[in-house]
Amino acid sequence: MSTRRTQVAVIGAGPAGLLLAHLLRAEGIDVIVIERQTPDYVLGRIRAGVLERGTTDLLHQLGLGARLTAEGMVEDGFALADGEHLIRIDIAALTGKRVTVYGQTEVTRDLMDAAPARGIEIVYGASDVALHDLTDDRAAVTFSVDGVEQRIEADFIAGCDGFHGPSRKAIPMAERREFERVYPFGWLGILADVPPCHPELIYANGPKGFALASMRSPTRSRYYIQVPLTDRIEQWPEARLWDELEERFAPLAAGPVTRGPALEMSIAPLRSYVFETMRYGRLFLAGDSAHIVPPTGAKGLNLAASDVAYLSQAMIGHYRRGDDSGLDGYQAKALARIWKAERFSWFLTKLMHRFPDDGPFEHRMQSAELAYLAGSTAMQTAVAENYVGLPL
Amino acid sequence: MSTRRTQVAVIGAGPAGLLLAHLLRAEGIDVIVIERQTPDYVLGRIRAGVLERGTTDLLHQLGLGARLTAEGMVEDGFALADGEHLIRIDIAALTGKRVTVYGQTEVTRDLMDAAPARGIEIVYGASDVALHDLTDDRAAVTFSVDGVEQRIEADFIAGCDGFHGPSRKAIPMAERREFERVYPFGWLGILADVPPCHPELIYANGPKGFALASMRSPTRSRYYIQVPLTDRIEQWPEARLWDELEERFAPLAAGPVTRGPALEMSIAPLRSYVFETMRYGRLFLAGDSAHIVPPTGAKGLNLAASDVAYLSQAMIGHYRRGDDSGLDGYQAKALARIWKAERFSWFLTKLMHRFPDDGPFEHRMQSAELAYLAGSTAMQTAVAENYVGLPL
Repeated sequence: MSTRRTQVAVIGAGPAGLLLAHLLRAEGIDVIVIERQTPDYVLGRIRAGVLERGTTDLLHQLGLGARLTAEGMVEDGFALADGEHLIRIDIAALTGKRVTVYGQTEVTRDLMDAAPARGIEIVYGASDVALHDLTDDRAAVTFSVDGVEQRIEADFIAGCDGFHGPSRKAIPMAERREFERVYPFGWLGILADVPPCHPELIYANGPKGFALASMRSPTRSRYYIQVPLTDRIEQWPEARLWDELEERFAPLAAGPVTRGPALEMSIAPLRSYVFETMRYGRLFLAGDSAHIVPPTGAKGLNLAASDVAYLSQAMIGHYRRGDDSGLDGYQAKALARIWKAERFSWFLTKLMHRFPDDGPFEHRMQSAELAYLAGSTAMQTAVAENYVGLPL
Repeated sequence: MSTRRTQVAVIGAGPAGLLLAHLLRAEGIDVIVIERQTPDYVLGRIRAGVLERGTTDLLHQLGLGARLTAEGMVEDGFALADGEHLIRIDIAALTGKRVTVYGQTEVTRDLMDAAPARGIEIVYGASDVALHDLTDDRAAVTFSVDGVEQRIEADFIAGCDGFHGPSRKAIPMAERREFERVYPFGWLGILADVPPCHPELIYANGPKGFALASMRSPTRSRYYIQVPLTDRIEQWPEARLWDELEERFAPLAAGPVTRGPALEMSIAPLRSYVFETMRYGRLFLAGDSAHIVPPTGAKGLNLAASDVAYLSQAMIGHYRRGDDSGLDGYQAKALARIWKAERFSWFLTKLMHRFPDDGPFEHRMQSAELAYLAGSTAMQTAVAENYVGLPL
């Protein structure tokens, strides 16, 4: 087995891991990133596409904002709809901030492309990743590449390996504090190279439930509808989904719902999950390895970004100033923001979906909440300040 | 049977019925108020005690605000608490409006005392109240007083007879649209002539659930705690309740929880209820006969006041200008405000109580919502504008 030593071993080369690696490397800290999949597989994962200002600031700070500036769509607002009317949330006017539509895949690509020139080593195709000796100075990650076992010893290990990765699972049962809510529906999504039906995102809650019209660029649309968890993708030929989308959005959108062949189509479950044990010895969790939000409101990637902003600052404090207060405070600081984002995602999910167990009273409550929101600048501001991202 | 005719027959001499009678009489419209109970019984009902500005404006407009001004406590704010910390909602600073602490019993007494001099006849002790011919011009109310049957024919009948009264029940099944949610707990309340522990109301949600410290005057306190629906009042000797209140409020309040003998002590269920059919022919419902809110936020009496404000304007339009548009629009106009108040009461109830079916995730959501509220001026403003009352 080949053994090496580095300062920070980062598990996972998704946006959380790569962003952390860049933030640390920019301060001269040595990192090695270990990824189970291939680069193409990582780039093939379709995720959210709305970036908070705090997230785009990080990319610009790293000098990696050129394509984001050229191709990202800066949005002044978005709309909620009760099935008949748009309630526009003018985030720019209400908060002075904007968001940027730029796919998670594009963020990952920018971080990935810039890694070699900045001295960030990414080991792809690492199987059997395992974490060892997390509570002492022999902390290490082992894995195999092409059948060859490797061992990387590190001062710190950053678990950026998502909900299914090994990092969180390496924390002993007795140390875990976790919280979960699973929602009784899924999102059926389609990605297609067609112009969006509306210049801003529309979150709609009509008689048939939730639907979202969003986009990744002026020529690429991303739509979703709420479906029962029992639905299979085979039940949804593309034409059926387009019919449904046209029915939902034709009365609401500024333009037509343009159809086109699906680049991707899938059904995803919705989950709220928080693993509060974000630090265990020398292991620090960030992003989806520690928490999942339902996609309503697009907080997942942005929470990963704020986690790694906090974590990179904490590690920089350790290496540059010998100050471990940031490391000691990381979990509490990250959780304060995470729970608020979880709250917003849960609020928006509850407001905009039809829940199978809800009755007529609960439907009236959704309508009343939307009617109140339509007329209240204060409530619109509360929604807007969460949408653009609460302060770091 | 003696038969009389009037313009508006008002069923119920609680605050809704009496306020409506005064508003109509002030415009020279003839009214007779029919009440099943005695005056003392009506005054013995302990209800909420926080009046919105819109409600106090109505009393002043009628020239009935002298005692309200002398004895009412004008409040600049109130507090929510997470069990450890107060989150003060500065309603005056956030909305420019204040609320007034003045018991519902006192409002009723002022309206009752002023009735004779203003030519408002109140028939007390009316049993077997029944409504007839609501869809034609023979609309009438019949009842018995001391065994003597009476009949009052009227242009309009106002059903202000509360949740259990006959008015709503006189509407045919096929016409009814109703919505209900019952909550899985009750409020155990105590009224005592002791100084309040805090100058403003405190709504607290701690590990043992909801508790409310409120008052009716500087020398009269009203406290509540959440109890299981299965609890009986016999399980709660006064000392046990005072112990509980001291445990909840001693860490939060500005002063001690002063104990004193209970003037009243009872357990009340919590319910959200809306009967949307507020007009049927010549019958108009107002107040608790058409809707119930859980007491969290003290919207019940204030909603009754806005109902009768709308209804009196509509009837005045009919009699003064021959304009029936107000009568035709009453239901829609009232419901728009009712549903928003129902939403706020439901929101505040959900935020501040422990629900038996909630798990650790839902408790974290409550904490996150309170933490967000503590730091967000926008969200505090949203709460405050509902607390002081949305515009008529």
